[in-house]
Formats: sequence, structure tokens, C-alpha cells
Amino acid sequence: MAKRVTGPEIEKLIQLLAKVPGLGPRSARRAALHLIKKRDQLMGPLAEAMGEAHRQVKVCSNCGNVDTVDPCTVCTDTRRDHSVIIVVEDVSDLWALERAGAMNTAYHVLGGTLSPLNGVGPDDLNIKGLIDRVSQGGVREVILAVNATVEGQTTAHYITDHLSGLEVKITRLAHGVPVGGELDYLDEGTLSAALRARTTI
Amino acid sequence: MAKRVTGPEIEKLIQLLAKVPGLGPRSARRAALHLIKKRDQLMGPLAEAMGEAHRQVKVCSNCGNVDTVDPCTVCTDTRRDHSVIIVVEDVSDLWALERAGAMNTAYHVLGGTLSPLNGVGPDDLNIKGLIDRVSQGGVREVILAVNATVEGQTTAHYITDHLSGLEVKITRLAHGVPVGGELDYLDEGTLSAALRARTTI
Repeated sequence: MAKRVTGPEIEKLIQLLAKVPGLGPRSARRAALHLIKKRDQLMGPLAEAMGEAHRQVKVCSNCGNVDTVDPCTVCTDTRRDHSVIIVVEDVSDLWALERAGAMNTAYHVLGGTLSPLNGVGPDDLNIKGLIDRVSQGGVREVILAVNATVEGQTTAHYITDHLSGLEVKITRLAHGVPVGGELDYLDEGTLSAALRARTTI
Repeated sequence: MAKRVTGPEIEKLIQLLAKVPGLGPRSARRAALHLIKKRDQLMGPLAEAMGEAHRQVKVCSNCGNVDTVDPCTVCTDTRRDHSVIIVVEDVSDLWALERAGAMNTAYHVLGGTLSPLNGVGPDDLNIKGLIDRVSQGGVREVILAVNATVEGQTTAHYITDHLSGLEVKITRLAHGVPVGGELDYLDEGTLSAALRARTTI
């Protein structure tokens, strides 16, 4: 704003809101005004929830999930099958797979992918923790649910190499046509993979 | 989420973030994860700024602007021409006009428009405050910068009627072609208004 039309506290709020993904400078102003209008119903509770989360959030020392307890809710859930570990790049992938609700297993969050160009090596990821978990026994399958990108596949190869000496089955997500997807819009690689992995009806 | 994969504090944060305009349920999750990752650089300061704003924000008793002081920064700015009052529906309009930077005047925020269908009458808006300000003297022009909607124009008429007995010039924003706008995409009303208000080059 060219001239000051409001207090520095409100301007600071707008500046910080603009750094939240999904909000730009313009929508940060709109969000700030909405929060100010609903200050008792929304801004107060949100400030408190954010402060509470800030104080309590921790990374699970076992699997790398974020939670307010350590070990996390997933790791301590006795109704899950902890002999199967789904390996994901990021917590958001864990959440996405849980929304799909297809499996009821343990997880392991790597915190990224190997990327030598960006200076991300095996020690920067939570790979040693995975090898330790598998080495301790009781794990019969590791499902590599990393992204189908070059970095994701490189990471999957690295993990496969390092788990190969252990008594564990290593699997990866199937490639194929997305449910609801139109063939015309798919790339050749996906179509080839879907054809090779065709199933009998 | 089908099953709990994280603490209730984080789920509450996501629920509240989803109520912020510009964020839906999906982007609220993404925003929450980003905040958790940047918890010391972003989540902590944002929680504090929001709490601070929540404690300090007040509505200016003179003009209806939101600020952390009352009277607000605009009302106490001695470099402004307080004999001209720009009347706007909402604080966001005040901020938008200030970004344009064309005027250096006082403002009056109505807090909405007359809308009998929605049960909004003159007493629900900050109209009496405007009449009081003009009645006290020292105001030579009131610029009605309400939206060019039916409700906005109804409100403008109502205000004009109630200020007509007072010694003050009442003006409204010009209608015309938006700067950078293409004629082909404009409605007939705007084009007619732009033709009627044509100016000599």
C-alpha cells in the first residue's frame, strides 16, 4: 500500500498470510479482512490452534510422520498391520494414501527424494531409519510409493539396493491409466505401461 | 480423513484454515503441512501476528475503517484533506482506492449496502455516522464510491437524499471503459455511459 491506512499489526498479518501456499498478496489481504470481520469466530481460534500446533508438533522418530505425539498416531495404532511399510516421499503423500483408504499399514516418510543436482544425498533423507526398521525384523513387505519421477525412481532403486540383503518383499505402485482418465490425454510411457500390465477381464 | 493419522491439534488447524477465503479443504491441508514444515520461520510468527491482531483490532468510531488504533491511521493523518470524504461499502474498497493512490482524502466505510431483501436497512449500515460527520461542518465534498450494482446505487440514492439539506457537494465515480479493457467484452450499459460521458481529446 502506498500510504499507511491501517496498523502495522494488520500489515504484518497480511505479509505473513501472503507466504501461506494458496494465498498470494491479493488473497492475503482478502483473507486478513475476512479474519478481522470474523475475529471472534475465526481469527481467535485460528491463532490459538496455530500456536498450539507450533508448540506441540513433532516429527515421529520412528516413521517421519508429523504429529503432536512421538511415536505418532499411525505408529502406535494397534489396528494396523505393522509388518507392511509404505514408503512415501512426503507427509502429504501419507495423507493422500490414507484418504484412499485402500491399506491399513505402517508408513515411512523419507522427507524428499535423492537429487544429486540439488545436493540431496542419502544422508539427507530418512533412509537409514527405514533400513533400521526393516533390519529389526517383523517387516514382511516394503511398498515403495514414491512419485513416478526420475528422482522418485532413483530413490526407489537406492532403497531396493540397500534392502536387498534383508528378508523382505519389495513392491512398487502399479503404473497404468488413472481411474476416470482419458487415453487421449495420457503420455506414451503411461499407455505403454498400462498395455504391458494389462489384466484379463 | 478416514482414520486418524495425526494429532487432533493438527486436524483442528486444518479445519480452521479451510474456512479462510482462498483456501478450501484441500489447500488447507497443503497450507497446514507447509506451516508445519516452516514452523519456526512461519507458523510461530503467523500465530503471534494473528493473536496480536485479534487482541488489538478495532473498528474506527469515526469512519468505520479497521485498525489497531481508534480513531484510525487515516482519520488522524494530518497530511490528508479531511474536507473530502470518499464513501465506500467495505474496508477492502478503501484499501483498493488507496492502492490506486489517486486521492489523499478521508473515508467513510458503510459496512455494506442497503438490501431490503436481505433485511439490511439504513440502521444496519454506518450511514448515520456519515450524516453526523457532514453535519458537523468542514466537509466540502462527499464522493460516493459504492459499487455499480443495484444495491450500491440504491444506497447512493438514499445517502444523497439524506445529505441534500446540507451544504456539501455530492459526487460519484465516473462510469466508462476500464483502462486496458476491450470494447468487445463490455456490456451495453457501460458502453452507453462511456459514449455519453465522452471527452474531447
